[in-house]
Amino acid sequence: MDPVEELLAIDEIHRLKARYFRCLDTKDWDGFGAVFTEDAQLDMSEEAGPDATPVVGRGPIVELVRRVVGDAVSVHHGHMPEIKIESHDTATGIWAMEDQLVWAESDPVRSTHGYGHYHERYRRTPEGWQIARMLLTRLRVDRERRPRA
Amino acid sequence: MDPVEELLAIDEIHRLKARYFRCLDTKDWDGFGAVFTEDAQLDMSEEAGPDATPVVGRGPIVELVRRVVGDAVSVHHGHMPEIKIESHDTATGIWAMEDQLVWAESDPVRSTHGYGHYHERYRRTPEGWQIARMLLTRLRVDRERRPRA
Amino acid sequence: MDPVEELLAIDEIHRLKARYFRCLDTKDWDGFGAVFTEDAQLDMSEEAGPDATPVVGRGPIVELVRRVVGDAVSVHHGHMPEIKIESHDTATGIWAMEDQLVWAESDPVRSTHGYGHYHERYRRTPEGWQIARMLLTRLRVDRERRPRA
Repeated sequence: MDPVEELLAIDEIHRLKARYFRCLDTKDWDGFGAVFTEDAQLDMSEEAGPDATPVVGRGPIVELVRRVVGDAVSVHHGHMPEIKIESHDTATGIWAMEDQLVWAESDPVRSTHGYGHYHERYRRTPEGWQIARMLLTRLRVDRERRPRA
Repeated sequence: MDPVEELLAIDEIHRLKARYFRCLDTKDWDGFGAVFTEDAQLDMSEEAGPDATPVVGRGPIVELVRRVVGDAVSVHHGHMPEIKIESHDTATGIWAMEDQLVWAESDPVRSTHGYGHYHERYRRTPEGWQIARMLLTRLRVDRERRPRA
Repeated sequence: MDPVEELLAIDEIHRLKARYFRCLDTKDWDGFGAVFTEDAQLDMSEEAGPDATPVVGRGPIVELVRRVVGDAVSVHHGHMPEIKIESHDTATGIWAMEDQLVWAESDPVRSTHGYGHYHERYRRTPEGWQIARMLLTRLRVDRERRPRA
């Protein structure tokens, strides 16, 4: 790609990931789904071990995320992107991240505060750049339990 | 606009908002004022209800912000911009944000920690891109009160 | 420089600083060293007073940083860059930052949470843009001491 096309692609991927965060925290699940390719993969090896099967498909990914954080007040922020355009239609990216969640009253954990990095693959589709694969590695996660009644 | 002009405009608006945050937290009130258009509007509907009148004008905006946070140790960070260039001289933007304030000793609240999104309009003036309208919506605000003496 | 070259330089400096943060927090000390020029200067005036001598050279900077935070779980995030390209091969930048460190068990301080700004100079070398000088000023640092045994 020529340099201007590359800069435009990087800018669009930055805004794609911004929609990922904004839709996640405002619980806009249609908008959240639209950031993923139809066949996107959510790599679960960090949460569930190296042999874990990825979650495959926009629908199942949205369903999983919605089930986990849909009732929480969540704040997810991304920082310091490192986007590499690999071809006209493929790219990779790393983002530092921080997330803070306050869970529903029924949860024994009151809040979670985590830090880590997203490792992602992107693909340009007729709808623009979308996330094709996502893995979240963690530097640290702090959990605050509720006092027992 | 051609793509390069659009990328330059986005870059300038990113740096404009960086000055907003840096001048606010270092209490550089002249620099802070310079990020707004002379006729800028601060939408207060989130703080004061849907019928609240906006604060109008660079001077009144700086005066209000300075009165509220001038004596606090403040940290405001912006994240994940979504800038849309609408014409040669107008643009909109959304920014995720987090703010942490430690209030003066005389305040019954010791500290505030908030999260939300700025929704903004920008206008290109002879001094460059400036903020023409600003609304801050909140995901969550935590307040820590001082222990009673 | 023409506008496209300037945008490419700004983008590369953004990714340079992203590597600084990622390598620091994942303890990739070779990668961390590679973000600095061979003759880089770490300005210590904020930590050690206005007459403090800077730490000079990639090796000594890495050694110092590694000694201080190598055993801590660290999270460093950069925000809101203000990069100014000064010539084909030199630039300056300001970044807002936040750092959170959990220290080794032997340390009487359990954790540190700080906020401030990096003030930097960059130089383009045969290896690309690198950090040539760095100063970190602080808005605030909170320390949590361990309870006495």
